[in-house]
Amino acid sequence: MTRPGPGLERLSLNTATTKRWTLPEAVAGCVRAGVPGIGLWRDRVAETGATRAARLVRDAGLTVTSLCRGGFLTAPDAAGRAAAREDNRRAVEEAATLGTGVLVLVCGGLPEGSRDLPGARRRITDEIADLEPWARQHGVRLAIEPLHPMFCADRAAVSTLAQALDIAERCGESVGVVVDTYHVWWDPRVETEIARAGATERLLAFQISDWTVPLPAGVLLGRAHVGDGCVDVRRLARAVEAAGYTGFTEVEIFNEAVWEAPGEETLATVVDRYRRHLGGATERSG
Amino acid sequence: MTRPGPGLERLSLNTATTKRWTLPEAVAGCVRAGVPGIGLWRDRVAETGATRAARLVRDAGLTVTSLCRGGFLTAPDAAGRAAAREDNRRAVEEAATLGTGVLVLVCGGLPEGSRDLPGARRRITDEIADLEPWARQHGVRLAIEPLHPMFCADRAAVSTLAQALDIAERCGESVGVVVDTYHVWWDPRVETEIARAGATERLLAFQISDWTVPLPAGVLLGRAHVGDGCVDVRRLARAVEAAGYTGFTEVEIFNEAVWEAPGEETLATVVDRYRRHLGGATERSG
Repeated sequence: MTRPGPGLERLSLNTATTKRWTLPEAVAGCVRAGVPGIGLWRDRVAETGATRAARLVRDAGLTVTSLCRGGFLTAPDAAGRAAAREDNRRAVEEAATLGTGVLVLVCGGLPEGSRDLPGARRRITDEIADLEPWARQHGVRLAIEPLHPMFCADRAAVSTLAQALDIAERCGESVGVVVDTYHVWWDPRVETEIARAGATERLLAFQISDWTVPLPAGVLLGRAHVGDGCVDVRRLARAVEAAGYTGFTEVEIFNEAVWEAPGEETLATVVDRYRRHLGGATERSG
Repeated sequence: MTRPGPGLERLSLNTATTKRWTLPEAVAGCVRAGVPGIGLWRDRVAETGATRAARLVRDAGLTVTSLCRGGFLTAPDAAGRAAAREDNRRAVEEAATLGTGVLVLVCGGLPEGSRDLPGARRRITDEIADLEPWARQHGVRLAIEPLHPMFCADRAAVSTLAQALDIAERCGESVGVVVDTYHVWWDPRVETEIARAGATERLLAFQISDWTVPLPAGVLLGRAHVGDGCVDVRRLARAVEAAGYTGFTEVEIFNEAVWEAPGEETLATVVDRYRRHLGGATERSG
């Protein structure tokens, strides 16, 4: 078993943060750093296949805290919808094989040329409701990730925690939400909705990174190490803790400069920032 | 009086859209194009002074639909707060001189180095409440503009229409909101909150532009002509109309390419897109 470093019992590295590491490298890095959790991306898992990836992670004694990602549910045509259904069923199976109970869903934006946002949102709800029984049968929960509203057009038409919870409540017991500080920090209702997610037992994952300005072109790769920006990550971590969340905190950063750094160095920064900015905020209360 | 072009009775050019035009050029452009409304920016007004600007616009028979902008209310130190108070009082006076009943407030983001978003939001509420009697005495209403959440860190910690209305309701009868399609189109609650703004008589201004991807670096200049992006502007215009709004529709676009085009050409596009995408949506109902 991986022995967690002091205070790192609930820290998880999302492999998107150390983008250039292969899965075996990321696993070895976590073991060396005393980071007991790992959040996996499907492209990395596909390199070895889910079964071998599962063995690799299990043998290292790591916990798979989530699989990223299913979703992209807004295709308006029958072929696009069928392809998305098929892909999401495979994603659920992979999550089950990997031994994680959480499949993250990035729900998809507006189809090319469309202005029908309510329609896209209806399709997302319909498709998640359709996927829910499959997920339940596999012991996997579907974690809707509300993305920052600046991604509404092209990545996720689910833009707030309140909206994600509304959808989850309509779709069944196996559906919940991800709270990602980067996506929700601006929301005046964030603490209320985190509490609601906890109270309804739908708070499935907690991811952290920081917001800096100016945003880069395309805005996808603007995330920063915790502590480099203006997000009060500790406040949000406390809200998540107060809501009864007892899972891991995943660090997920999309940033070209972070990706250019050696994985070892990035992970050391992740650990340092976690200790400095969240130390004590997510200690188990009982 | 400026004779409005057919169907243009409620169209207004916000002068930020034709950034390179001086105020006299913008006024002459509106008269030629049959656009009866003009939304002014304080920097353009300052070039001639408010009294001369008021005469220029009045003599041309145009209606000043708003003055942009007051606000920037989040300074944490006494000197910064005092300076903002002084500046906002001058902005109210300018609005009154210009004969417009609407001063747009862009409320300001987090102070440099701060992570205290709830604190910044409290200061915004306090400062607007402080400014309200002055505005009321001058016959000017303060229109809080919720900016898209991607501007929360650096421009406006007021991020949703619901939040803007919550603040307005706390601050007095002279405070209301601006609905700008670029800032609110993504919001799952947008129609509910537009209706609320109308029902509480706080819907003070309606501005339009469109959202395109990818966003440019810094994200400020990403707005597009109506029809070039993915916003269903007509749906939002209808919601505003259904809420009882009888004012002008201001076209406000920040975009380097739009600014590079000759003002005449930009205004022709504004008129064409307004007719094509909003024709009928904002006809006076009685």
